[in-house]
Amino acid sequence: MRVKYQEMYDQFLRVLLKHGMTKERAELSAKLFVEASLDGVYTHGLNRFPRFISSVENGIVLVNAEPVLKESIGLIERYDGQKGPGNLNAYFCMERAIKKAKEAAIGITTISNTNHWMRPGSYGLMAAEENCIGILWTNTIPNMPAWGGKDAKLGNNPVVVCIPHEDAPVLVDVAMSMFSYGKLESYARSGEQLPIDGGFDSDGNITRDAAKIMQTHQPLPIGYWKGSGLSLVLDLIASTLAGGRSTCQVGKLDYETELSQVFIAIDITSFPDKERIKETISETLVDLHNSAPMKANQPVRYPGEGRIKTRKENLELGIPVDEAIWNKVLAL
Amino acid sequence: MRVKYQEMYDQFLRVLLKHGMTKERAELSAKLFVEASLDGVYTHGLNRFPRFISSVENGIVLVNAEPVLKESIGLIERYDGQKGPGNLNAYFCMERAIKKAKEAAIGITTISNTNHWMRPGSYGLMAAEENCIGILWTNTIPNMPAWGGKDAKLGNNPVVVCIPHEDAPVLVDVAMSMFSYGKLESYARSGEQLPIDGGFDSDGNITRDAAKIMQTHQPLPIGYWKGSGLSLVLDLIASTLAGGRSTCQVGKLDYETELSQVFIAIDITSFPDKERIKETISETLVDLHNSAPMKANQPVRYPGEGRIKTRKENLELGIPVDEAIWNKVLAL
Repeated sequence: MRVKYQEMYDQFLRVLLKHGMTKERAELSAKLFVEASLDGVYTHGLNRFPRFISSVENGIVLVNAEPVLKESIGLIERYDGQKGPGNLNAYFCMERAIKKAKEAAIGITTISNTNHWMRPGSYGLMAAEENCIGILWTNTIPNMPAWGGKDAKLGNNPVVVCIPHEDAPVLVDVAMSMFSYGKLESYARSGEQLPIDGGFDSDGNITRDAAKIMQTHQPLPIGYWKGSGLSLVLDLIASTLAGGRSTCQVGKLDYETELSQVFIAIDITSFPDKERIKETISETLVDLHNSAPMKANQPVRYPGEGRIKTRKENLELGIPVDEAIWNKVLAL
Repeated sequence: MRVKYQEMYDQFLRVLLKHGMTKERAELSAKLFVEASLDGVYTHGLNRFPRFISSVENGIVLVNAEPVLKESIGLIERYDGQKGPGNLNAYFCMERAIKKAKEAAIGITTISNTNHWMRPGSYGLMAAEENCIGILWTNTIPNMPAWGGKDAKLGNNPVVVCIPHEDAPVLVDVAMSMFSYGKLESYARSGEQLPIDGGFDSDGNITRDAAKIMQTHQPLPIGYWKGSGLSLVLDLIASTLAGGRSTCQVGKLDYETELSQVFIAIDITSFPDKERIKETISETLVDLHNSAPMKANQPVRYPGEGRIKTRKENLELGIPVDEAIWNKVLAL
């Protein structure tokens, strides 16, 4: 089943307004949700919307709370997210970072006390649209063991980097765990093996059996000990810069909330050699395209390149939806 | 065989002076080389020294060339490394970044036209010693295929993050390939299987056989497609900020040289909540230590924690050396 962009947007808007969000905020939030699905990031668009509404109903997310500036430390602006919606807070922070970058080549905004930012690629793309490199990351609840450990101590702490390039910016969006719990669940349900190792079984062996990983709660970090280390430092930098909770401190709360996030924008147009920079980016991406492919007819693409095609298709044909989830939203 | 710190330092100094490096520079370079070995990073200390001297003899490294400021763009200082020694250039850049961080909370220095920086942990630790978070990365020659491709298009682009913490800062030092060629060679020589998947064999299957990966030149990125994407954006950010070559442009040269690097220092003492930040770091590391270990008697440690013990041991007993390499240095 497919649903047209406008129809999905209208439903999101209706539900958000019904939950007391003011009009302008609800319009932006609805747009961010529908664009995630439009770009093919279904997990953080429609599929996440009912859970977002639950967190509003549970009082974890305060729909009209806005970021408040705590302090500026050099270039770094630190905001208190006031438990507002993670997507609107993140949008605000990236907008500020871009504005600062336009003044000073680089802008850095951080936020504490915020909620899950939904689809982070949106904020990276905001930067690219303004000819800025966007770099952002968040911490999360503890959901992954440190290397050598059994119990979840680290977050999967997703990082997004977006590099402006013509119509299709480079968009890297990676969590520090190899597979999200959502992905593991879907493999476990289908009984299919993971394409690569995904975590540990109860005997401490590395496995591709998603169901076994769901039991141990021991997903693998990307690059094993390397992703474990990266997750730790991403968390410590975010909590330091934002003056907020680290992952282990988030773990003391009843829910995943009061997160720490960092947003960096670097304005390429403020560099004297901006034309050469654009050429270097193009040349590098062309070189990547010239890779001999591992599988015939599967040319190498750069991250973010496929997005444009998906978006176009979903705009024309409608956005593919899980009918049960769509009906759930209609009933909200 | 073990060699005392002072003896190794004296030999490095002797050889560097013999190759025309001025005294002060040779002293610092010798110190950086010997400290790499002292801390247990043998690959980038003694073991790398003869190769460094070769690159001096080949004219790739100009021993007395110093970084020259190209321009300042907002906070970002851009240097031309003038083909100088990578370790001295990197030391200079991190020193500048720290100085700027002491003035403005954050300092960012970039360098183009530089050489291999030897052991990058040294520059991260410089930041930590000054109560700064240190973040640095470099691009490299193409040495890893992009995900889905067969030929080397990406660099392994090592990243270092160092977080100040008492005597033993958190020190993460990760390349974007799962195993370096040096590591693959040593497994291939011993005939031992890699502990985890390391690359592709000639049939395009993922393998733990280091010799087969040496044949295909297809090492795995950390986190598969994730590390491939991260490598790409690290390269593009470094070449953009430094106004230097990207990995594919370095690949057009006869040797690995004219690299682009980024050095960031963030001064924790410039934050009003510096005491709370230190507590958060401590609390997070204590929580990590409290992990139930996968293997009994192997408690979870954070990256960089083991360094102190190795350093102490090597200082007392001497630094373990490969006798053949040591003799090579004595003969230089």
